[in-house]
Amino acid sequence: MTQPRYTPLVAALPANVPFVGPDTLERRRGRPFTARLGANENGFGPSPRAIAAMAAAAGEAWMYGDAENHDLRHALAAHHGCAPENVIVGEGIDGLLGYLCRLLIEPGDSVVTSDGAYPTFNFHVTGFGGILHKLPYKGDHEDPEALLAKAAEIGPKLLYISNPDNPMASHHPGTVMAEMVSRVPSGTLMVLDEAYVELAPEGTEAPIDANDPRVIRMRTFSKAHGLAGARVGYALAHPELIAAFDKIRNHFGMCRMSQAGALAALQDKTWLAYMRRLVEGSRNTIAQIARDNGLEPLPSAANFVAVDCGADGAFATAVLEELAQADVFVRKPGVAPQDRCIRISCGPEPEMHALAAALPDALARARDRTPG
Amino acid sequence: MTQPRYTPLVAALPANVPFVGPDTLERRRGRPFTARLGANENGFGPSPRAIAAMAAAAGEAWMYGDAENHDLRHALAAHHGCAPENVIVGEGIDGLLGYLCRLLIEPGDSVVTSDGAYPTFNFHVTGFGGILHKLPYKGDHEDPEALLAKAAEIGPKLLYISNPDNPMASHHPGTVMAEMVSRVPSGTLMVLDEAYVELAPEGTEAPIDANDPRVIRMRTFSKAHGLAGARVGYALAHPELIAAFDKIRNHFGMCRMSQAGALAALQDKTWLAYMRRLVEGSRNTIAQIARDNGLEPLPSAANFVAVDCGADGAFATAVLEELAQADVFVRKPGVAPQDRCIRISCGPEPEMHALAAALPDALARARDRTPG
Repeated sequence: MTQPRYTPLVAALPANVPFVGPDTLERRRGRPFTARLGANENGFGPSPRAIAAMAAAAGEAWMYGDAENHDLRHALAAHHGCAPENVIVGEGIDGLLGYLCRLLIEPGDSVVTSDGAYPTFNFHVTGFGGILHKLPYKGDHEDPEALLAKAAEIGPKLLYISNPDNPMASHHPGTVMAEMVSRVPSGTLMVLDEAYVELAPEGTEAPIDANDPRVIRMRTFSKAHGLAGARVGYALAHPELIAAFDKIRNHFGMCRMSQAGALAALQDKTWLAYMRRLVEGSRNTIAQIARDNGLEPLPSAANFVAVDCGADGAFATAVLEELAQADVFVRKPGVAPQDRCIRISCGPEPEMHALAAALPDALARARDRTPG
Repeated sequence: MTQPRYTPLVAALPANVPFVGPDTLERRRGRPFTARLGANENGFGPSPRAIAAMAAAAGEAWMYGDAENHDLRHALAAHHGCAPENVIVGEGIDGLLGYLCRLLIEPGDSVVTSDGAYPTFNFHVTGFGGILHKLPYKGDHEDPEALLAKAAEIGPKLLYISNPDNPMASHHPGTVMAEMVSRVPSGTLMVLDEAYVELAPEGTEAPIDANDPRVIRMRTFSKAHGLAGARVGYALAHPELIAAFDKIRNHFGMCRMSQAGALAALQDKTWLAYMRRLVEGSRNTIAQIARDNGLEPLPSAANFVAVDCGADGAFATAVLEELAQADVFVRKPGVAPQDRCIRISCGPEPEMHALAAALPDALARARDRTPG
């Protein structure tokens, strides 16, 4: 008898990983990146007040974190104009997506998303035996109409969309998202991933009632708030759905330092306003660097820019690999035709200088490598 | 149609919580505890080097933690004399127990444990639809023979035992655990929870080959290392089982500060040796306080002491409630006859003084409240 006896579902799962992390890549290369611009981390860093709060909380790390995330949840509710019962805090959006899939997905259940959208969501859907139906992008945007049509056709348990979108940094007006919610089929829950929304143009945040039972919105402190390493995400949804997480979640799963850091970050509205400017400046810098090299930057509503390398996926992959040779870490979309782009995260000036210095040679070498 | 459509398993789960946390209790009371001695946290705190490492890492919190926990896993492997492939790091033992149940447990699968043993393990088993078979303690120890007999009878997927035991702080020699492993039925995985083992007498750590496919050992930085709030647990097991976690875990779930703190804590062997003395001193202090009040402290191999209040569970509950009235937080076992005890965590002198000051009155009031 095999020991241990995995569930048939687990036994059939591939040994894949949704992302190879930057630290892993550095170890494989044998040297660090000088510009870590591939994971949509925020190199401008968190609010100094968040850093101070976490450093102070380090001395209290002997205490478990608050299992209810009370202070943070109440502050988030005030921030969003909803009740604390509309808010669940978890180990990043990744952790919350995992819990959500566990709540809803059984083997054979269907889920609708876009082809090339967030791989970690797909990882969790597949991990619970769900069947992914992937709709193509429309241009460089996720396609609400196609997603809704597929949902109407098959009645999935979950319908995923991100706004702004990752990996393209495109966006829809928030009203489009709100209209999507109004058209979600009965029995389908829309998952609106707004990880980057604080960095998007005004009007991108969807005007949705937190008590609407048809949608759950995902937010994070990893992007605009610069706290990816603290692992704090949250979701806004109907209180019944929020309460369901308590049936299964790791109740003492949150780091006490991270709770303190997220609360301080949320309260430092000056820093967030400053961050929006820093990110906007960096987006412009990346766009200029792209244009200086004859490439086309796509409009960005997030802390990264998709840069059209002007050819196919193989060429963009070659550019990415050559940049890595020059110690500049970027990523790229995985699905055609979006895979013609490389995806460059915003970051401070030294990283931008490294990018500007490395890109011309990387392009030249990539052109040498690829025929035509 | 209900929206969203939960899995039948989730729909049937109760809205329970394995533990009500200390912070929640303080909010319910409307005032803080002066002595937080109920959650087996370690009030002596982590190594100052761990605090410094976490505070330093706070400034790098913009980066995701290393998804492979490479440095910590390698250090743990060296510490335990096994390979990094034998080690998985996760969001506390709680998080790892949840993953383990997900890997193995389907609705209807059986699991053997002791009645009154770790509630969070039971929470996860039930959360995946497993059926718990709970065997009584033998005296104040978990009962290996009874657990093995039941396992031989029903062939459970998991057989759980903790050593040292929580909530009684009793222990078996490590050789008894190793012998248990040798007698685990084919197809059963033994889960040996050694959360407190660093604080136990020499010889309590089980002499088990990390490559033995019949057992997984759970360890944590929450107890001896004083890092409960950082959420770092790990497991030692056969590489195939360790690799299976990668199929389902939250790959970027670890806090970067916590990774740094745990590594520094592991390396500070001087602090751990000091901690063993501090905890031993506190155990003796708690025992003396108990005896001064006519109560019987049970021998402890952990950072807490079960104190026999000399009557039934109702009386011990009354003592616990009266201590809380005096701002002293302790917990107690939930199952008779162990529930005659209260469970007091070790802690620094001020907390011990608060306990000593509060206990006589608490006992007197408890006696006034309970008949006989």
